[in-house]
Amino acid sequence: MISIDITARDGRSRTGILRTPRGDVRIPAFMPVGTRGTVKALTPEEVAGAGADIVLGNTYHLYLRPGHMTVHDLGGIHRFMNWKGPVLTDSGGFQVFSLAGLRKITPEGVEFRSHIDGSTHFLSPENATRIQHVLGADIIMAFDECTPYPATREYAANSLRLTTDWARRCRDIHKAEEAESSLFGIVQGGMYQDLRLQSLEELISIGFDGYAVGGLSVGEPKEHMREIMDYLGPAMPEEKPRYLMGIGDLKDIMAGVEAGFDMFDCVMPTRNARNGTLFTSTGRISIKRNEYKNDPSPLDADCDCYTCRNYSKGYLRHLFLCREILSMRLNTMHNLRFYLRFMQRMREAIGQGAFAEFRARWDKIDW
Amino acid sequence: MISIDITARDGRSRTGILRTPRGDVRIPAFMPVGTRGTVKALTPEEVAGAGADIVLGNTYHLYLRPGHMTVHDLGGIHRFMNWKGPVLTDSGGFQVFSLAGLRKITPEGVEFRSHIDGSTHFLSPENATRIQHVLGADIIMAFDECTPYPATREYAANSLRLTTDWARRCRDIHKAEEAESSLFGIVQGGMYQDLRLQSLEELISIGFDGYAVGGLSVGEPKEHMREIMDYLGPAMPEEKPRYLMGIGDLKDIMAGVEAGFDMFDCVMPTRNARNGTLFTSTGRISIKRNEYKNDPSPLDADCDCYTCRNYSKGYLRHLFLCREILSMRLNTMHNLRFYLRFMQRMREAIGQGAFAEFRARWDKIDW
Repeated sequence: MISIDITARDGRSRTGILRTPRGDVRIPAFMPVGTRGTVKALTPEEVAGAGADIVLGNTYHLYLRPGHMTVHDLGGIHRFMNWKGPVLTDSGGFQVFSLAGLRKITPEGVEFRSHIDGSTHFLSPENATRIQHVLGADIIMAFDECTPYPATREYAANSLRLTTDWARRCRDIHKAEEAESSLFGIVQGGMYQDLRLQSLEELISIGFDGYAVGGLSVGEPKEHMREIMDYLGPAMPEEKPRYLMGIGDLKDIMAGVEAGFDMFDCVMPTRNARNGTLFTSTGRISIKRNEYKNDPSPLDADCDCYTCRNYSKGYLRHLFLCREILSMRLNTMHNLRFYLRFMQRMREAIGQGAFAEFRARWDKIDW
Repeated sequence: MISIDITARDGRSRTGILRTPRGDVRIPAFMPVGTRGTVKALTPEEVAGAGADIVLGNTYHLYLRPGHMTVHDLGGIHRFMNWKGPVLTDSGGFQVFSLAGLRKITPEGVEFRSHIDGSTHFLSPENATRIQHVLGADIIMAFDECTPYPATREYAANSLRLTTDWARRCRDIHKAEEAESSLFGIVQGGMYQDLRLQSLEELISIGFDGYAVGGLSVGEPKEHMREIMDYLGPAMPEEKPRYLMGIGDLKDIMAGVEAGFDMFDCVMPTRNARNGTLFTSTGRISIKRNEYKNDPSPLDADCDCYTCRNYSKGYLRHLFLCREILSMRLNTMHNLRFYLRFMQRMREAIGQGAFAEFRARWDKIDW
């Protein structure tokens, strides 16, 4: 089972260690996304070397391909992908609900069609939980209905009822199976404060090992997102990890940390890297720009990553324009290191009671 | 300047060290191809770690993109691509002549159109040599006309005349520019033994730092290729390196070594890797095959590469079917290590006077 040790607080923000049977996770933590059992373009050693303590896997993708039983037969998610630290899997809910038109929701669960071959599948709280057990993740997520944006109050309330009911069923099957993993509940409720707080309350009364906020970054204005994290963070149990799902803009992460969240995930650093958008201590760079053609300087003189220690912007631009695989690797290594070092600096700032200064400094940069 | 120390001979095959100002190259050597300043999918550290002493760059590609002056401005080919060992560049001849329909040959040189944007360019012996100087390669190749297959005797004889004339002009400009690099001449002559031997003789009388055989593996039957390497190898100067260009099938490499060749290059291990075709000590594997779906064993139990030490065939199949970047990386690392270890074993066999046994053993395997 997991536990958290909070070693320092600064305002509502907190830093410390999330302890898992497979190793410690320094919080606030950024979790690189390894959708299909690989953080795109990197080896597990590179992901760990960049400073990641935990990675994400996606249940929906691994269930469809290669199949959870295959992952199991190949030794479980850790052995499968050669990642030695803890793994968190989402429940598949978010992905299934993103398949607009390809899915049918009933109180029992969701019937959906594979985006790969159109075959029909069914996910319920029970089998989404079981699939995660079979995959062998350390932290697993309840199967929720991700309320879309915009949603009427009525839709959001009905959706929330379903999510709470499903959360209870996830908790029950999780208990019945005596799984070693930890189970997190997911707060929904759309953009409605009372529904959001009701959702959290219901989840707390069911009882989970950690609490997550879902249904954000689904198209809503940033102010709504910030407002929701701002009132939900402090309302969440102190002694349990708090996970803000799918949030990855660095300024949003800082806002989340300010509101007391501990865990974050997003494809932003890795996907942007593959698209040639790179984060630096002075802002965002599009590496394809002509101005870098003959530029012998590194991406970021302040960065200690493999890419910045060994390659020029001119070379990185060349690789990107040629669509070379090494381009995706070097860019991903840089962006991920940048993110994870940013988290490290944030943890230190919290430890020193200097989070407000940290945030003010980095909020100025035009990412 | 370069030199070779032959430390052992076995029949006509030989092993030893090709000494270059940038480091030693163990011969017989396989040179991974880094067309655009990157051995596809790998970092230079991984290429060296797999056992490569020298890599290839392609003049045609680097001239067009990012441009040789840009490579120069970014510190030259070594700094550009972060490869610390010696680099050999081809002259661009082979690529230009492959652009059937897009090129016009005159005694002066070749006018051709870029495969990237259709722009018109001109390569001559003089500027192909100068471009290679500007790139900063350690070993550079004369600009030749690669005789196509099939070619009439008349075509081959005329083409040979051009190649010899151009070789002289390359040598002259190379001398005039007082370049530090070493210049190799390229034997042409199509499938005609007398023309091939004449080509070699003419090149020897011009005088080069090494001699290469071009115009093979251009569609001719294997028997012709084997026959040509068989009579050319022993005819080449003893004290200079002998390079069999573009030959990469392992059985052909063994035949080349048997005929006394020292250097080989081919995209076969790297390109096949990206296509999911993997070399093992028991034969060739297509990793996408269904039989590997739940296979927890490594690609090759006999292999010491990163891929075989850490991943199952089942996982490699999964990555390949998902077209993950890591698939190309892990497959390339394996194939390259397999090739380079094969060369190492061959060098040891020659040193022990056991090359015939080595060849007999590996010739049996169905690659």
